[in-house]
Amino acid sequence: MSNIPYRTHLSEEDIPRYWYNMQADMKDKHDPFIHPGRLDPVVYEDLQPVFCDELIKQEVNTTDRLIEIPEGIREVYKIYRPSPLCRAYNLEKALGTPAKIYYKFEGNNTSGSHKLNSAVPQVYYAKQQGLTSLTTETGAGQWGTALSMASAYYDLKLIVFMVKISSEQKPYRKAIIETFGAEIIPSPSNTTESGRKMLSEHPDSTGSLGCAISEAVEQAVKTPNCRYVLGSVLDQVLLHQAIIGSEAKIAMDMLGEYPDIVIGCVGGGSSFGGIISEYMGDKLQGRANPYFIAVEPASCPSMTRGKYAYDFCDTGKITPLAKMYTLGSGYMPSAIHAGGLRYHGMSPIISKLYHDGYVDEARAVAQTDVFKAAKIFATAETILPAPESSHAILVAIEEALKCKETGEEKTILFNLTGTGYFDMSAYMQFNEGKMTDYVPSDEELEAGFESLRELPINQGI
Amino acid sequence: MSNIPYRTHLSEEDIPRYWYNMQADMKDKHDPFIHPGRLDPVVYEDLQPVFCDELIKQEVNTTDRLIEIPEGIREVYKIYRPSPLCRAYNLEKALGTPAKIYYKFEGNNTSGSHKLNSAVPQVYYAKQQGLTSLTTETGAGQWGTALSMASAYYDLKLIVFMVKISSEQKPYRKAIIETFGAEIIPSPSNTTESGRKMLSEHPDSTGSLGCAISEAVEQAVKTPNCRYVLGSVLDQVLLHQAIIGSEAKIAMDMLGEYPDIVIGCVGGGSSFGGIISEYMGDKLQGRANPYFIAVEPASCPSMTRGKYAYDFCDTGKITPLAKMYTLGSGYMPSAIHAGGLRYHGMSPIISKLYHDGYVDEARAVAQTDVFKAAKIFATAETILPAPESSHAILVAIEEALKCKETGEEKTILFNLTGTGYFDMSAYMQFNEGKMTDYVPSDEELEAGFESLRELPINQGI
Repeated sequence: MSNIPYRTHLSEEDIPRYWYNMQADMKDKHDPFIHPGRLDPVVYEDLQPVFCDELIKQEVNTTDRLIEIPEGIREVYKIYRPSPLCRAYNLEKALGTPAKIYYKFEGNNTSGSHKLNSAVPQVYYAKQQGLTSLTTETGAGQWGTALSMASAYYDLKLIVFMVKISSEQKPYRKAIIETFGAEIIPSPSNTTESGRKMLSEHPDSTGSLGCAISEAVEQAVKTPNCRYVLGSVLDQVLLHQAIIGSEAKIAMDMLGEYPDIVIGCVGGGSSFGGIISEYMGDKLQGRANPYFIAVEPASCPSMTRGKYAYDFCDTGKITPLAKMYTLGSGYMPSAIHAGGLRYHGMSPIISKLYHDGYVDEARAVAQTDVFKAAKIFATAETILPAPESSHAILVAIEEALKCKETGEEKTILFNLTGTGYFDMSAYMQFNEGKMTDYVPSDEELEAGFESLRELPINQGI
Repeated sequence: MSNIPYRTHLSEEDIPRYWYNMQADMKDKHDPFIHPGRLDPVVYEDLQPVFCDELIKQEVNTTDRLIEIPEGIREVYKIYRPSPLCRAYNLEKALGTPAKIYYKFEGNNTSGSHKLNSAVPQVYYAKQQGLTSLTTETGAGQWGTALSMASAYYDLKLIVFMVKISSEQKPYRKAIIETFGAEIIPSPSNTTESGRKMLSEHPDSTGSLGCAISEAVEQAVKTPNCRYVLGSVLDQVLLHQAIIGSEAKIAMDMLGEYPDIVIGCVGGGSSFGGIISEYMGDKLQGRANPYFIAVEPASCPSMTRGKYAYDFCDTGKITPLAKMYTLGSGYMPSAIHAGGLRYHGMSPIISKLYHDGYVDEARAVAQTDVFKAAKIFATAETILPAPESSHAILVAIEEALKCKETGEEKTILFNLTGTGYFDMSAYMQFNEGKMTDYVPSDEELEAGFESLRELPINQGI
């Protein structure tokens, strides 16, 4: 046994004092958000009715490398951070690999995921601005849980538009969010124009993340002293999540380790942006060349099979247009898919880094393989992983097994974004052999791409 | 803000090398386990068909103060221990109390509770002995989860007799246990004599912990190379759980703190025995005099309203008799009660310490008050507590509010035994105002006491 412990806990004092802003080191920034009516870049005034002032400043800040974390936020981070960096000795042994496998475990807080890292600052800034309420959407429910916790802590009212099918299939997610005092409205609802429009056209709609976003934005704009907050995709969210990679790097440096491969799952891209942060900084500045792999579900393959184009962030087409890898805002992932990672698009920062070759690889994986990997990991490491996180586990195992073949002692780091306590119905499906896979046909994807071609800004897509 | 951090993480090297055996410091040991047929103390040979050899030695060891933790167990403890000692700054602020509140957080592992501390050694010793399978029972499901994790880790087959009503009401608990590879049999079942007897007398029985114990013991005895393991009550389990208090003391000492009051919930008594361990040692040896409070549900009040008498540990009356605080092995707690802590008896060690005045107080609390306390705690500390743990939270809050009245700056330590992820249906009940309380009448308790009086050994009860 080496001197490296199973779990490395940094001290409270080691919690970074700054968020690392990857964009400052990107020579080419991502293309600007575009106003869907005017077709020119959005400006501060466009965003001001929707987002908190300070968060808009962070959203458009592409120059400051380090953005200070206010003490009021660090105080809350101290309740659950630094998160542990774990050496997966048991998984290595189970695989018989010479590779060294590390994971950053972001699930050891009640929200059960990394989402709290951005929920805390977003609510903090809203409180500082004197706002009294917030709106958001949630699909699988991790973001809603994290935000309800942060809102309870800072004493702000929160309305969560929850994708209707999720609120029905996941009553316990609903219950935990309500326990923290937030109000849940199943979406599509009669509360908003977008919801009513959706219901009149599709009375049986079970909802989608895109539709819930439309409703939450509309609700925020029409409510005094209220703003909308979002748990992924946006630059500000990647900024907050950068703390994952910063802490990982501090701990790995302490152990004298540097990853050859960094792996994360991608839905909107925030946790992946988080784990790669400072390591991507090294690559952007030519100091090192780690290999980055983004893992997505084969059923919602925006990076591996999507277009790099301008698209709406929502279904109701009321948000600005973002240049990103997308399947089209109308793409609905199959109901066969069990977990999160169902978003049609992808963080503009991650999209740009992938397009420019800094993210080396995107890999689409089948969910039955993901759950197989989850069970191997759970048995070896005694942690029941979230289905989302298990996408990264699967690829970490694949890479470790390659090392077994070649004999290479690579150092692998992946992001264990959360725990699977609220995903037991998917585990049951898998245990009972009832889980199936789904890969959309080219024709299905074409339908989504059609909507992209209708946007005049997407010439030649 | 003082220099004391929100969370104190000891290093892996700080994990105790010995379990502290409280009994060695007890001048008067608890009365011996009695053979129900012979009515004399059980001997090694009586227990040998049921329990692992090494665990029997631990069960009857009342003299060695320190029992070495084998490296093979410490290696697994390292995956999730030391558990953090947390300063509840936010709860203190929310209450406006001058008291300093600390809690040991045992829920930060996938089993979600302290139960893993005893599951790991029990399976380890079974493996060492060359056994190939184990049986156990589970009610709320925490023990079954912890044991399934440990069994998967050491690669032993496990059969869990799960109280039928729990297996129906908690399909997700069942799923997580099955994910770790264990087999679940709802109890009462047709697999055993005790089960068949129960079903013939009460065809609609929804099961009880006592009945599941009978079935698991019987199954172990009739299966080659198999033994039975138990998650609470026994002396060996309290021994393993002593690690909670040992770690708490190391961390508190490091911070220069000593608790005036130590609080824990009690069902079978193992987590309470765990948190008090070395502090009780101080009291038994006259070095200090902390005030110990055991908190139980008013619906299952074995310490506050039970008899100190010999009783069976199970319903089927096949186990040895233990001298303990008990409501009678036939006592069935009301279905109104939501969480664990439903056991009719109490650890013989805890019973003896309470009877002799070393445990200063037992307090019975109503479950609606418990859930109120849980929500206050969740909002302040961002951890959703298990209903069981919330019994301790409630009393910690009560004591802190007394300090607010008197102005005393007492130091309070309580055991946060687990998280409430799998108890959302109870939280839902509470959120919707549908939860009620239940206090058994004296007449109801009398019925249970009758069965105690039938035992010739219980003269004058």
